[in-house]
Amino acid sequence: MKLDKNLNILIVGLGLIGGSYAQALTEKGYRVTAITKDQSSVDYALEHGYIEKGYTEVTEEVVSSADLLIFALYPHVFTGWLEQYGKLIKKGAVVTDVTGVKEAIIDRVLYLLPEGVEFIAAHPMAGRELSGIEYSDSSLFKVANYIVVPTEQNEEETIEMCEELGRELGFARITRLTPAEHDKMIAFLSQLTHCIAVSLMCTSDEPGLEKYTGDSFRDLTRIAKINDEMWSELFTLNRPALLAQMDAFAETFNTLRTALATGDTEKMRSMMKKSTERRKLFDKK
Amino acid sequence: MKLDKNLNILIVGLGLIGGSYAQALTEKGYRVTAITKDQSSVDYALEHGYIEKGYTEVTEEVVSSADLLIFALYPHVFTGWLEQYGKLIKKGAVVTDVTGVKEAIIDRVLYLLPEGVEFIAAHPMAGRELSGIEYSDSSLFKVANYIVVPTEQNEEETIEMCEELGRELGFARITRLTPAEHDKMIAFLSQLTHCIAVSLMCTSDEPGLEKYTGDSFRDLTRIAKINDEMWSELFTLNRPALLAQMDAFAETFNTLRTALATGDTEKMRSMMKKSTERRKLFDKK
Repeated sequence: MKLDKNLNILIVGLGLIGGSYAQALTEKGYRVTAITKDQSSVDYALEHGYIEKGYTEVTEEVVSSADLLIFALYPHVFTGWLEQYGKLIKKGAVVTDVTGVKEAIIDRVLYLLPEGVEFIAAHPMAGRELSGIEYSDSSLFKVANYIVVPTEQNEEETIEMCEELGRELGFARITRLTPAEHDKMIAFLSQLTHCIAVSLMCTSDEPGLEKYTGDSFRDLTRIAKINDEMWSELFTLNRPALLAQMDAFAETFNTLRTALATGDTEKMRSMMKKSTERRKLFDKK
Repeated sequence: MKLDKNLNILIVGLGLIGGSYAQALTEKGYRVTAITKDQSSVDYALEHGYIEKGYTEVTEEVVSSADLLIFALYPHVFTGWLEQYGKLIKKGAVVTDVTGVKEAIIDRVLYLLPEGVEFIAAHPMAGRELSGIEYSDSSLFKVANYIVVPTEQNEEETIEMCEELGRELGFARITRLTPAEHDKMIAFLSQLTHCIAVSLMCTSDEPGLEKYTGDSFRDLTRIAKINDEMWSELFTLNRPALLAQMDAFAETFNTLRTALATGDTEKMRSMMKKSTERRKLFDKK
């Protein structure tokens, strides 16, 4: 399948990401239908012109007429949906997702999909500290990465279609990773950072600290406002990779602590020099 | 002493902070003279109209004519300067500083100053990842805190003069703390965050990670670009307070790790809920 403005695109789940997808694709001239839990989200999407049609009930008519289905749901809701309704998806359709972990769900998704339906996994690395379609904003993607996570079962044409979807959504960079590479990378760059932010925010209950806070503390804890239901699920689904990254960080942190405790200024400075040099690579271009 | 536009203000050290002070005070109509190490910094400050006069040599004439001296130097350079030239400061003058730690330097400064010269410690909680007067920017202070750190030896009038200085510099918020309160607060809000950022940046050398980095990793590591000379000195001068905060953070981080490792989703979620709630206090007003 090639991406095409005549495709029937069905987005399942109009939350922050699903809503932003709907907005971005409609702005580009695609025809978008949506199924989501709450009528208020359907109403919001219709009022804002994000979708052509929206439903709160899953019907054979709507599902079976979709050529491209994009699931923007929590991982267990996504697989639960497929258990119940996956059989309604028509042969030849392509399914993609936005799930933040891959190894833990891909096999289950492949198992649940009917024969002749291809699944191409993808992860838009974008988000906000707020959830719900009312915070949707397709400009979120302009500075974000879109990662396509193919398996050996994918057709090259479908992988390219998914990359094209990322471009059409407006992502700054489109890349490919294997499921294992993806999960390791996400454990370090995204999940570990959330663990650190949450831990830092839970370290002190001292009242009044906010009066003295500078930008550094604010920066380190911005993501400490976190959707606990979603992130605890993502952490759990990526447990081995995340524990490995947490341990690696704790070890490095302890190395710095020891340098400070023993007065090893050279070691402290060498770590600071390394962090300064390495951080330059991460500046936005 | 009251703050007054006829005072002779001498800034010692035209780096990022000293330069920004010079700029802010001159913009407000104060008369600012500076002494700094490099002629290029004097030239820059004169060209940009930050100062009236600038010198690279310390002379009795310049020092003894100052009513208010502001030291914007590394801690050991500040105390070293006082050892050598402190005796040149005239009776009745007031000395203040910008040093990021207080307990470790206040007694030494008081000991080195001549009789009749009052020291009022202050800490502008502002900075950038870059150093040098060419990165000076008085607008840095608009969103920052200015902390006045009096001791029992200070006159109330001098403390108020220092608070007025903070207002004239344009700081968003002016507060008072004791040296011990200051050092504990700074260990948590500023030094610990820098330890975390440096450690996170040193945790993985895997090439190519920058291609996948989202905003969360960038936010947590912005301050990992760090002046290693200055920060290793600040860490060392505040060692007991910082080690205590590092240990408190490591313990909380390990609590989250244990919750993940043992599948205690409720514990993970309760920490996330707490961090979400608590972080709201730190939103910029």
